Amino acid sequence: MTSNQSINRYKERGVSSSKEEVHEVVDKLDRGCFPGAFCKITNDILTLNDNLCNIIHSDGAGTKSILGYLWYRETGDSSVFKGIAQDSIVMNLDDLACVGVWDNVIISSTVNRNARNFPGEALSSLIEGTEEFIQSLSDFGIKISSGGGETADVGDLTGTVAVDSCAVAVANRNKIVDNSNIKPGQCIIGLSSFGQSTYENKVNSGIGSNGLTSARHEMLSKHYFDQYPETCDPRTGEKYLYCGPYRLQDSFSDSSLKVGEALLSPTRTYIPVLKSIMENYSNNIFGLIHCSGGGQTKCMKFGTNVHHIKDNLFKPPPLFREIQRVSKTNDQEMHQVYNMGHRFEIYCESNCADEIISVAKTFDIDAQIVGRTEDSNKPDKNNHLTIESGDFSIIYE
Amino acid sequence: MTSNQSINRYKERGVSSSKEEVHEVVDKLDRGCFPGAFCKITNDILTLNDNLCNIIHSDGAGTKSILGYLWYRETGDSSVFKGIAQDSIVMNLDDLACVGVWDNVIISSTVNRNARNFPGEALSSLIEGTEEFIQSLSDFGIKISSGGGETADVGDLTGTVAVDSCAVAVANRNKIVDNSNIKPGQCIIGLSSFGQSTYENKVNSGIGSNGLTSARHEMLSKHYFDQYPETCDPRTGEKYLYCGPYRLQDSFSDSSLKVGEALLSPTRTYIPVLKSIMENYSNNIFGLIHCSGGGQTKCMKFGTNVHHIKDNLFKPPPLFREIQRVSKTNDQEMHQVYNMGHRFEIYCESNCADEIISVAKTFDIDAQIVGRTEDSNKPDKNNHLTIESGDFSIIYE
Repeated sequence: MTSNQSINRYKERGVSSSKEEVHEVVDKLDRGCFPGAFCKITNDILTLNDNLCNIIHSDGAGTKSILGYLWYRETGDSSVFKGIAQDSIVMNLDDLACVGVWDNVIISSTVNRNARNFPGEALSSLIEGTEEFIQSLSDFGIKISSGGGETADVGDLTGTVAVDSCAVAVANRNKIVDNSNIKPGQCIIGLSSFGQSTYENKVNSGIGSNGLTSARHEMLSKHYFDQYPETCDPRTGEKYLYCGPYRLQDSFSDSSLKVGEALLSPTRTYIPVLKSIMENYSNNIFGLIHCSGGGQTKCMKFGTNVHHIKDNLFKPPPLFREIQRVSKTNDQEMHQVYNMGHRFEIYCESNCADEIISVAKTFDIDAQIVGRTEDSNKPDKNNHLTIESGDFSIIYE
Repeated sequence: MTSNQSINRYKERGVSSSKEEVHEVVDKLDRGCFPGAFCKITNDILTLNDNLCNIIHSDGAGTKSILGYLWYRETGDSSVFKGIAQDSIVMNLDDLACVGVWDNVIISSTVNRNARNFPGEALSSLIEGTEEFIQSLSDFGIKISSGGGETADVGDLTGTVAVDSCAVAVANRNKIVDNSNIKPGQCIIGLSSFGQSTYENKVNSGIGSNGLTSARHEMLSKHYFDQYPETCDPRTGEKYLYCGPYRLQDSFSDSSLKVGEALLSPTRTYIPVLKSIMENYSNNIFGLIHCSGGGQTKCMKFGTNVHHIKDNLFKPPPLFREIQRVSKTNDQEMHQVYNMGHRFEIYCESNCADEIISVAKTFDIDAQIVGRTEDSNKPDKNNHLTIESGDFSIIYE
């Protein structure tokens, strides 16, 4: 399969990893007072203090909630939605972390549900999951407060459930991490997305909350198409729907997790380890990137006149290898959709890389130098990216 | 049709005006530092100032977005989504207004869309609508800032589009309007939801953003069931889906608006008039209620040992009368689902009611004393409500 066929496959499911159309609209808007930062940052409207700034950020669990729904329907275990609550929150908190903010954050949640298919016990699990996750961060001295949220019964809008969150902070301007400071000559450390950190109670597959529409349809079998048509867009061709070999309870190569457990691994937050790193090395760090939508190519949006070179990625963990095997997706597409092994990047001075890596390892989070930045080769000095391994070299422009 | 049959009709569409199940879950949560206030208010996590407090609030356009979708599909006019953007924002801002906060608010939006059915031009209209609406408030000296938002392509989650917003403010504790101060012996002023205020460019039907699942299915005809199955929950019985007499472009009794225009009237914000009222009468005002979910019965959740008596409601404007006529819904249910003529209530001293009403009228917003509060008749002193007119007397407990 060529790269274009692979991207078409993605589009046939009504999704896009690059979101060109959305960016065409959104990129016209004001980019805030740190235009190169990972999140939009505005002047301090909330308290009108010139030294402060505001960040309000929205994101959610996307279609990962559908996997939670399938698990719930097949097992009756509503506690799976605790993980979905974590997914939705971490997708916001770890974005905020990229601008240097992880404490004194307030969050709110919006649940758009089909009340028949997603009943009260499932809603309870979502809410309990939110409270428990916030409590777990509090054990690290990280103060997140839940301001409540909204649950809407909108069965005409969804057959299952959409779980979204919003996170807000007021920050000191001089503490903001501004990714426009990513420049040539820096070192890129990747923090692994898989394994089991000291603050997780189970092995993590590394999947996060991106690429789940593809992963679900590529891995799971027609059983789910037959049994749960409410989880499919009827405009998507049947051959792209649940075209994989597995049921949720199946095992797969090299993994102690079942397929369903792996696809549902709650998105790891990097905040405890980042807090520890930033307390000691903030002066040596130039940029932070959450490899969310766009996977390993997310970095291209950030930095000034940079050629991002990643030539020492983690070996992809079992779930990504299996998704690639069953879907025959090429390497270029895989790295655009999935994080492939690390979901967080620290751009720093190379002389403190070893120490930063050591800090990560105290949390049992594997970390390594995954690459570096050089001068952009392009005539217009635009950012570009090369991903290299022994097997392939891919250029993204 | 009896009241129970009518409520069953509502439930057959998978919605509930009283949201018992949601409240069962949510009511266990911490209610914040003003438990009787309209919105949850927390200690000031954002800036850690003992004199301040935080409000983060989420709500959205609900299934009104589906009406926008139908209009867009039938006419090709994507600008209808500007109104949906306003709906989503006002559902938050007017809730915040009930705790006395309407300035220095930041908002964020989340759009969960089916990218095939809700393309880029529709998304553009949503975003333009947001910017234009914020600008229109700025003309009244009301500063709202948009911190951006998230657009997710989730065709497996929705066939159309869900539009939600989150609004955040930091407020002085001593400026908070706390609805626990609603007590016996007060006057209730209603601010009309219909007509054309000085800051609207078209007559408003008064519909707001609540009850739209019912209104859509009761008013619109099977044409929409046949043409747009993506706007129906397949688990809802066909006889409850689009069982009305109208097309969007049809006229109806006593209305200058077409059916579609009336159902899509953008939710009026009361902030300009409230700002003006509160600047002069805040010491005479005890409580503020946005008659959103629950319609005219929303007030029962607020106040201390109160019998709410509403015996002088506005004559319902044409759209509510027509919904009631075609659906044969009884008065009890109508007042639980729709605002029926006023979407905002001011609980105040009776001796300044005339002046407050005069202020509203300078904005061409009709206002009148719609009722009063007396001592609760109940043994446990719980709040209850009586709605009376020449035609009926309804008791809600």
